[in-house]
Amino acid sequence: MREAFITPAALERHPDLGIRLRRGPFDLHLCDDDAIAALAGSSSPQGVVAVCGFIDVDLDRALTGKPRMVALAAQIRDPGNMGTLIRCADAAGADAVILTAASADPYNDKAVRASAGSLFHLPLVTGTTLEAAVSALHSRHFAVIGAAGSAELTLDASRASGSLGGPVAWVFGNEAWGLTDETRALCDREVAVPVYGRAESLNVATAAALCLYTTAWAQRGLPVDGAETAPETLTAP
Amino acid sequence: MREAFITPAALERHPDLGIRLRRGPFDLHLCDDDAIAALAGSSSPQGVVAVCGFIDVDLDRALTGKPRMVALAAQIRDPGNMGTLIRCADAAGADAVILTAASADPYNDKAVRASAGSLFHLPLVTGTTLEAAVSALHSRHFAVIGAAGSAELTLDASRASGSLGGPVAWVFGNEAWGLTDETRALCDREVAVPVYGRAESLNVATAAALCLYTTAWAQRGLPVDGAETAPETLTAP
Repeated sequence: MREAFITPAALERHPDLGIRLRRGPFDLHLCDDDAIAALAGSSSPQGVVAVCGFIDVDLDRALTGKPRMVALAAQIRDPGNMGTLIRCADAAGADAVILTAASADPYNDKAVRASAGSLFHLPLVTGTTLEAAVSALHSRHFAVIGAAGSAELTLDASRASGSLGGPVAWVFGNEAWGLTDETRALCDREVAVPVYGRAESLNVATAAALCLYTTAWAQRGLPVDGAETAPETLTAP
Repeated sequence: MREAFITPAALERHPDLGIRLRRGPFDLHLCDDDAIAALAGSSSPQGVVAVCGFIDVDLDRALTGKPRMVALAAQIRDPGNMGTLIRCADAAGADAVILTAASADPYNDKAVRASAGSLFHLPLVTGTTLEAAVSALHSRHFAVIGAAGSAELTLDASRASGSLGGPVAWVFGNEAWGLTDETRALCDREVAVPVYGRAESLNVATAAALCLYTTAWAQRGLPVDGAETAPETLTAP
């Protein structure tokens, strides 16, 4: 963080934040509601705005340690969906989020707001090609799975087959056209979130939440129906 | 549907829709882009607008047949979240969506758009009290479960215990404060979507998708990890 702006009302509402902001090695400016509104660009600003450096890292840095779950945005264009995807990935315990070059800017104000802070919680890679990302993931023994409503293999069947237990990278495509043929060619397989009702599809961020949480449960070897017997049938996490 | 408005371009793009609209027992108006934009109220209208009657039904009608899964919105205020919740409920195969009086209007244009057609796919109850809804659900042997991030029982543990296999009604609360004390007192139990990373919470529609799909999988007795043995441990759907 390089500079912060806060209204007296926000300072009063969040005394702990005020203390931390005053301690920081950067300029803190008290300003009025109009100034904050102009900076925040939202209709109901929360009274505090900060100027930060970019935080994305390169592929190698994002995949250090022993990553087990990665979310990959391939041409997701809506900033709100991008922010929500990052928030879901964080909540589900993903190790990194990778955005291909043609995806929405994660620093867009709507994306930042929709991420609800998760932008700062896990490594973010931007502007890479899908080829480079898949290559880096394959060298780390990831299964690269495309989320595609048209796939024959469903998410629950995929979990049942045990194939979500190892390192998994999920590829989520564009809101309108899903995964391109080029993207599909780079995926090891495709998996669909089943639709049981009459909805045509799910919002991409919702589908992502289901894929990532199902993976988290599979990787953690969590028991499902029939708790008393299920643990014996699980593969080690 | 009582009246429909369409641009020549949309008519050309969707010939099947044109045929169905021309057949219908209502007035069809050809109009230009400006007129459609004014009616649609969206920045990129799709060229067709219809005037419809309200479609909500009363509790008894919504719960006819043998309903097994219901989504209940208790003071969800954002129209986008409301529409997405309806879409998720439809996709997960829910039998009805019930909205308490203090919830967002499902006929709001943003809610209609976010529902992506699902508004018309499953019975919708509006303007009821939570007391009346819970009473109707209890008389039909539903377990009424509040989705609450603070709950000790997690969604995966709840599935593991087998308690999502019978008729389940999920109660989803307000975006800012979650479930009120009054709402919590009406729920049989509370369940949390676990957060494995550092996110503080999930968007309410995302949390709803996870709760509803997990319930669908539990009710359908779908196998999970260790497919070859798991089915024997399942209770009948």
